[in-house]
Amino acid sequence: MSQPVRSTTEIAVRYAETDQMGVVHHANYLVWFEQARTDLCLLSGFHYAEIEKAGYYLVVSRFDLRLAASAHYGETVTVTCWLDHLASRRLRFAYEVHHESKLLVSGKTEHIWVAIATGRPSRTPALVAQPFARLAGSSG
Amino acid sequence: MSQPVRSTTEIAVRYAETDQMGVVHHANYLVWFEQARTDLCLLSGFHYAEIEKAGYYLVVSRFDLRLAASAHYGETVTVTCWLDHLASRRLRFAYEVHHESKLLVSGKTEHIWVAIATGRPSRTPALVAQPFARLAGSSG
Amino acid sequence: MSQPVRSTTEIAVRYAETDQMGVVHHANYLVWFEQARTDLCLLSGFHYAEIEKAGYYLVVSRFDLRLAASAHYGETVTVTCWLDHLASRRLRFAYEVHHESKLLVSGKTEHIWVAIATGRPSRTPALVAQPFARLAGSSG
Amino acid sequence: MSQPVRSTTEIAVRYAETDQMGVVHHANYLVWFEQARTDLCLLSGFHYAEIEKAGYYLVVSRFDLRLAASAHYGETVTVTCWLDHLASRRLRFAYEVHHESKLLVSGKTEHIWVAIATGRPSRTPALVAQPFARLAGSSG
Repeated sequence: MSQPVRSTTEIAVRYAETDQMGVVHHANYLVWFEQARTDLCLLSGFHYAEIEKAGYYLVVSRFDLRLAASAHYGETVTVTCWLDHLASRRLRFAYEVHHESKLLVSGKTEHIWVAIATGRPSRTPALVAQPFARLAGSSG
Repeated sequence: MSQPVRSTTEIAVRYAETDQMGVVHHANYLVWFEQARTDLCLLSGFHYAEIEKAGYYLVVSRFDLRLAASAHYGETVTVTCWLDHLASRRLRFAYEVHHESKLLVSGKTEHIWVAIATGRPSRTPALVAQPFARLAGSSG
Repeated sequence: MSQPVRSTTEIAVRYAETDQMGVVHHANYLVWFEQARTDLCLLSGFHYAEIEKAGYYLVVSRFDLRLAASAHYGETVTVTCWLDHLASRRLRFAYEVHHESKLLVSGKTEHIWVAIATGRPSRTPALVAQPFARLAGSSG
Repeated sequence: MSQPVRSTTEIAVRYAETDQMGVVHHANYLVWFEQARTDLCLLSGFHYAEIEKAGYYLVVSRFDLRLAASAHYGETVTVTCWLDHLASRRLRFAYEVHHESKLLVSGKTEHIWVAIATGRPSRTPALVAQPFARLAGSSG
């Protein structure tokens, strides 16, 4: 079993993402993580938007973030993302946000699959089973 | 023809709505306006969510806002909203945001009806024709 | 030692808080939690904005949320908040979001005090020591 | 007098920017415009963050946007920005958002300069006078 695939997303901090402390408001890290998941998906060969077209939502069921330092307007940060855990009905992504060599934020998000037609939890859609196994580093 | 019905929405400024200038970021006024439209709709007897269930979106086609002064975290502001213009295929809402007696923001948003099934512009849905005419003050 | 004080915040879901899954985007729960912290602070006798005026930021250092069910536009949810843990340099708030009797989200946020003048971590500001002890239920 | 300088900003639509209509919520266009202003500033030789460090805010006093079509998650849009009008105390930026060759949104934002120290309106800061004149195409 090999290492999970890691995506890298460059994000120029937006002014609207700051709050009156003069730093990025903490809720935005979840938005950046989501953008990073999209980029990781792309590395597996398809756009996340196609998953929804195939009839599935990848719903967030839990997230846990640690904030070591703040991002600022004027900085470009790097978000690294990888598939940390992959099971038949659940998966977990891990993330790190760096500015230059400094770790700002690390975190994990857990997800379940939901079939759009029924609104009920589902096994991994066939469409993504192999691509996600490759992302997780478990197909070799 | 009578005056349009005016709704009043009290909003406690959220910390996340500020930016590093120490005031509310201007994009949030549109979110407050939207909350005010929901409250105005309620005065006409139904929740805006019911319009979507009936098969129509009320899509924003234009907005124009003037910012005279800023809102701050710790303040509770009042958003007044009324139906400024009502035609068979278009409508316009007007808004004012006050903090105590001070006018902070005024603006207008223009909308069209879109039938969800077709994605195409539509006349005013039957469901809202009379309620919205009353809001506009044109049914009396 | 008594139970911690619990604040209750009613929030009408905003349209802008939904995403294309048709439910509230998960990042917004942090914004609601922040509004609930403000309301809890008020129960201790002062507005959080006064803490900043006294020279301190209450910085988020970690958050962990579990999402059991989704909130929808058209619903009014209730956010309960209490001071879960209070130490000389760290504190933790806990939260629950309910729609009617259904638990949607639960979570915790951890915080440190930062002196604005120096940008460095600080002990609990004198201003809030007693009020926060009362919130935690540890002063009786 | 030559044409104004135009900046081009590529933006991958974020999932969190959608709402339950399945399209980008209209308030986000202002956030994209702001990111485009940052990129236009960079073309004049400095980062907007430096303006604040020099003691000035560029405050939004009005905005007017027309929405012709919607942006969707999965699309990368292009925001073009230029300095549309430059006077001693006021300036106006213009914007267009395209997806491929289709115009989605156009708009203008008006701004005033505010001296941070006094909180009062100011003439154009010396720092930006020449760079902004070049952006406006009025220095040649």
